[in-house]
Amino acid sequence: MSFSLHPQLVADCHVLGHYQHCHVLLQRNAVVPWFIIVPETEETEFLLLDIALQMEVLFLAGQLRHFMSKQLAVEKTNMATIGNIVAQLHMHVIGRSKNDACWPLPVWGHLDEQKVYSDDSLSHFTQILYDEYGLMR
Amino acid sequence: MSFSLHPQLVADCHVLGHYQHCHVLLQRNAVVPWFIIVPETEETEFLLLDIALQMEVLFLAGQLRHFMSKQLAVEKTNMATIGNIVAQLHMHVIGRSKNDACWPLPVWGHLDEQKVYSDDSLSHFTQILYDEYGLMR
Repeated sequence: MSFSLHPQLVADCHVLGHYQHCHVLLQRNAVVPWFIIVPETEETEFLLLDIALQMEVLFLAGQLRHFMSKQLAVEKTNMATIGNIVAQLHMHVIGRSKNDACWPLPVWGHLDEQKVYSDDSLSHFTQILYDEYGLMR
Repeated sequence: MSFSLHPQLVADCHVLGHYQHCHVLLQRNAVVPWFIIVPETEETEFLLLDIALQMEVLFLAGQLRHFMSKQLAVEKTNMATIGNIVAQLHMHVIGRSKNDACWPLPVWGHLDEQKVYSDDSLSHFTQILYDEYGLMR
């Protein structure tokens, strides 16, 4: 299957790597740790994926939750598949904490602040995901 | 296990019934069809549930997606587990359409309009969920 990431997702995110049939992206806005999982499918509804691919997405989301909990001390994971603007199926996995920029509101439309990842922190986090969580380049 | 629904969820929603270990609620605001699935667990992170309970929630979410697609002609399903305000684990399953009150924004914090379900439409929908989708009283 020929598959390419939606240009809007690529514009908004760092593409970190892939795992099985899923791409792992990180929102460029570093105000909250915000991963996006994009499974390789033409289907736009998560609930219409076959179970095996749903499970791949959820396993990976679980890995990212674990990473954020251990490495970034996030207290809560918000997970959502919305897709009203970018139809290509993508799952948000967002680390939230009581002292973050828009707690307790969900991030969409409530995150005014902007911050960027330093090259160092980006490559540090990515390396951990490669080394300890099975992410592939 | 003694389990009770969080009072805030009960205040905000009609409790329609249950399926296996999950309760099915419907947001009282009828502006968009907005179901909430509450699995019977003390765990607050969906990604830390055992796979069997994750699958129950997703199966039920798939049933609700099908119901909204067939009965309410919704075009898109938004699904999310957030829990920043009400910690009791709950999964939002929301039917969205391009002509709805806050398209394409997510509903949280962007749904100003309020509408109530008539008793008739509420009992009509609930009966279909009992008869065709396996929901139990």
